[in-house]
Amino acid sequence: MTQTRSSSVTNFDSWKHAYAARAANLSVSEVRALFSVVSRPEVVSLAGGMPDVSALDGALIEEAFNSMMASRRNYALQYGGGQGDLRLREQIQEIMLLDGVQGSVDDIMITTGSQHALELLADLFLDAGDVVMVEAPSYVGAVGIFRHKEAHIEHVFTDEDGISPEALAEAADRMTAAGKKVKLLYLVPNFANPSGVTLSAERRQQVLQVCKERGILIIEDNPYGLLYFENQPPKALRAFDSEGVVYLGSFSKILSPGLRVGYVLAPPAIRDKLILANESAILSPATFAQMLVSEYLSISDWKGQIDRYRNLYREKRDAALEALEQYLPRVQTTKPNGGFFLWLTLPQGLNSKEMLPLAVTELVAYTPGTAFYGDGRGANNIRVCYSHPTAENVKVGIKRLSKVINLQLDLLDTFRAE
Amino acid sequence: MTQTRSSSVTNFDSWKHAYAARAANLSVSEVRALFSVVSRPEVVSLAGGMPDVSALDGALIEEAFNSMMASRRNYALQYGGGQGDLRLREQIQEIMLLDGVQGSVDDIMITTGSQHALELLADLFLDAGDVVMVEAPSYVGAVGIFRHKEAHIEHVFTDEDGISPEALAEAADRMTAAGKKVKLLYLVPNFANPSGVTLSAERRQQVLQVCKERGILIIEDNPYGLLYFENQPPKALRAFDSEGVVYLGSFSKILSPGLRVGYVLAPPAIRDKLILANESAILSPATFAQMLVSEYLSISDWKGQIDRYRNLYREKRDAALEALEQYLPRVQTTKPNGGFFLWLTLPQGLNSKEMLPLAVTELVAYTPGTAFYGDGRGANNIRVCYSHPTAENVKVGIKRLSKVINLQLDLLDTFRAE
Repeated sequence: MTQTRSSSVTNFDSWKHAYAARAANLSVSEVRALFSVVSRPEVVSLAGGMPDVSALDGALIEEAFNSMMASRRNYALQYGGGQGDLRLREQIQEIMLLDGVQGSVDDIMITTGSQHALELLADLFLDAGDVVMVEAPSYVGAVGIFRHKEAHIEHVFTDEDGISPEALAEAADRMTAAGKKVKLLYLVPNFANPSGVTLSAERRQQVLQVCKERGILIIEDNPYGLLYFENQPPKALRAFDSEGVVYLGSFSKILSPGLRVGYVLAPPAIRDKLILANESAILSPATFAQMLVSEYLSISDWKGQIDRYRNLYREKRDAALEALEQYLPRVQTTKPNGGFFLWLTLPQGLNSKEMLPLAVTELVAYTPGTAFYGDGRGANNIRVCYSHPTAENVKVGIKRLSKVINLQLDLLDTFRAE
Repeated sequence: MTQTRSSSVTNFDSWKHAYAARAANLSVSEVRALFSVVSRPEVVSLAGGMPDVSALDGALIEEAFNSMMASRRNYALQYGGGQGDLRLREQIQEIMLLDGVQGSVDDIMITTGSQHALELLADLFLDAGDVVMVEAPSYVGAVGIFRHKEAHIEHVFTDEDGISPEALAEAADRMTAAGKKVKLLYLVPNFANPSGVTLSAERRQQVLQVCKERGILIIEDNPYGLLYFENQPPKALRAFDSEGVVYLGSFSKILSPGLRVGYVLAPPAIRDKLILANESAILSPATFAQMLVSEYLSISDWKGQIDRYRNLYREKRDAALEALEQYLPRVQTTKPNGGFFLWLTLPQGLNSKEMLPLAVTELVAYTPGTAFYGDGRGANNIRVCYSHPTAENVKVGIKRLSKVINLQLDLLDTFRAE
C-alpha cells in the first residue's frame, strides 16, 4: 500500500511547545493554493487578483532602469531611510492629489506593498480581542492580518453603495456595549476587493461622522481608485479628514506588484510610530525598487499608462458581464465601475468552496466567497477577477464556470423535484 | 522667544488611547539618526553597517537586468508565491553549501532582507515575557525586534571566542527556575555585529548541546560568513543540526542591501508557518528583486565578486587597526577576521553616547555601545564600522575620533589628579 505524503501533515513538529499564542491564527492562505493553480497554462484563472502586466510598456521600465543606473546607482543599491525616498514621496503627493488627497511629504511612508502598511498598522493598534470593523465581504489579505493579531473581525452590512453607515454605528455601539474596544474601520472604498462596489459620496461623509463620534480610526485602502471605467469615484475619505483617516496606496495595480512598492499617509504621531515599526521589521524599504518607480514616474507618461490599463480592464469587465448574462443568467453579479473584481451570488443551495475542485477539473479557477469573511459566511458567493486573463479567456472561463454551476443547479432541481 | 520644534514631541496624538500594548516598545532607532548623519559628505561615518556598493561591478547588474527583461519580464513584474522563486532557492542551496549547510530547497524561504526573517520568527515564537538569549553585545536590529515583541532579552557573556556555553547554560537554567519560558537563542556566529568576534568550532558544538538539552531553538544569523579575511570560519551550527537551528542568510553584504533579498532555512513545520506569516505580512517577496539576484548569480562570476569584497574589507580593517594603534593606544579593540566591525572598549570613565555629539562636531560618527544592549550596558563601548568609507577615510575618521577621546581622557586625568 502506498502512502500519500503531505508535507504539512506528516512533518512532526518538535517545536510545537514553543510557538507564541498568535501563531495559532496563521491559517493556510487560500491565495497560496491559487497561485499554483494559476501557473498551469491550461487553466483560465479568475482567482488571484493579479494585474495584467503584459500591458505595461517594457521599454519604459528599461529606460527607468538605465536612467537610475546612470544617475543614482550607488544610492539605489544601498540601504535607505526607514521612511523611504524623499523624491518618491513628493511624486506620491502628486498621485494622491488625483484622489483629492492633500498630504505633507513628511507624513508619507513607503512600504513593501500596501499589504505591509496594513500589517504595521494592525500591529500598532490591535491587542488580542480588539474590534476591527470591515466590509461584508472584505479583502482576504486584511482579514488574514487581523486574524493573526487575534482581533475580533466584525463584518458590517454592505450593498451596492458600499458599507452602511447605520449598520456601522449599530455594530460599533453593540461591540462597545459588550465591553470591547472598537479600534479600527478597514475600508476599500473604490471598486472594492472582492465586491467591486464603491462607497457613495454621501455615505463617505456619514462614515466619517460615525467614526469621528466614536474615536474609531479609519484605514482607507485605495489600490484601485485610478482604474475607473466611466466616472471617477468620489473624493477619498482622507480628503475630508486628515486626523481620522490613514490612507494606503500602491504601485501594484498601476505599475507592477513584483516591485512591492506601496505607501501610507498617516497623522504625524501615527506616522512616527509606523516609521519605527517599518525600521524594526525590514530596516528600510527597498531603495532599488523605490528608485525604479521614481525614475519611471519622472521620465514616462505614467498617466497615459494608467489610461491604457483603464481601457484594458474596462474591456475585460465588459467581457465578463456579457458572458455572465449569456451563460449564467441565474447568477447575480455586482457591476463595478472600475478595478478588478465581480462578486457573484449563486442561487440558494450551491456551495462555492465545495464546487471549486469541479471547476478546476473544467479548467477554470475562482476564489470562493468564504475567503472574504472571518466568520464562515460567503459560501454561496464567488469572486471573479477579470484583470489577468485576456478578454477572450475571461469569456472562456465564465463559460466553463457555467458548465459547473448549471450542472449543480440541474442536480439541485432534480433533488428538489423528487 | 523662538521655539524649537521637534515633530515627535510637539505632535499632539489624538490616537494615544488606541495603541496596542506592544506599541510602547517601539523606541527611536539609533540607526535612523545615523542615516541622516551619514548623508552629510563632510562627516566620516564609522556608524551604519553599510557595504561598499561602489565596489560592485555595475555592468553585472545591467547584464542581469537585461537578461531578466528578455527572458522573464512578466514573471518579474507580477506577484509571486509566498515562499519565493524556486530557481533562486536552488541557487541559495549552493551558497549555503559554502558554509557547510545542506538544506532542502523546500525548506528555504525568501525574505525582505534577513531582518524580516528575524521579525517573522520573533512573531512566531515570542509571547510577552518569553526569554530570548543573545550575545553581549548583540545586533541592534535584533534587540529592537525582540523588545517590540515584549520579550525578556538576556545578554550572555561573550569573549573573543564568541558566546560562552557555560554562561549560556547558567542563564537559561536561571531563567527557567524563575518561571520564564526560554524560547530562543539568537546568534551571529561569524564576525558578529557589533563585536566582530567569531564563535569557535569547539564552542559551536557546546552551544548546540546546551540548547538541545533545554529545547531552545537557535537562530543562526550569518550575513558576513563569506566575507572572511584570512581563514574561513568554522562550519555553521546548522551544518550539525537541521532540527534545532534556523539559519538566516542575506544578499545585502555580498551583493546589495538596496534589493532587500534575504533568506531563511528552517525545519519543515516552522517553514510552513513562516510562509503563512510572510504571505500575511507582504503577500509575496518582491519577484523583481528575486529575479535580478537570480540572473546575477546565473550569469556573473559572483564568487569573484565576493573575493573582491573580501580584499577590499581586509584592507579597510587593516587601515582601522593601524590607525587605532597609532592614534588610540589606550583603547582596546577586537581583531576580527572578517566582516564589517570593530568593538572598542574605552578607558574607564568615558561615555560613548555622551561623547557622540562632540565626535560629530569633529566630523566623525560611530554607534555607541548602548545600542547593542537591551539593558543599558555598553556605555564605554563603541562600534566602529570600517566597511563603507575608503581605507584612507577610515584612518581620517579614527584620527578625528582620537582627538575627541584624548581630550576626554585629558579632562579625566586632570580631574583625577586634583
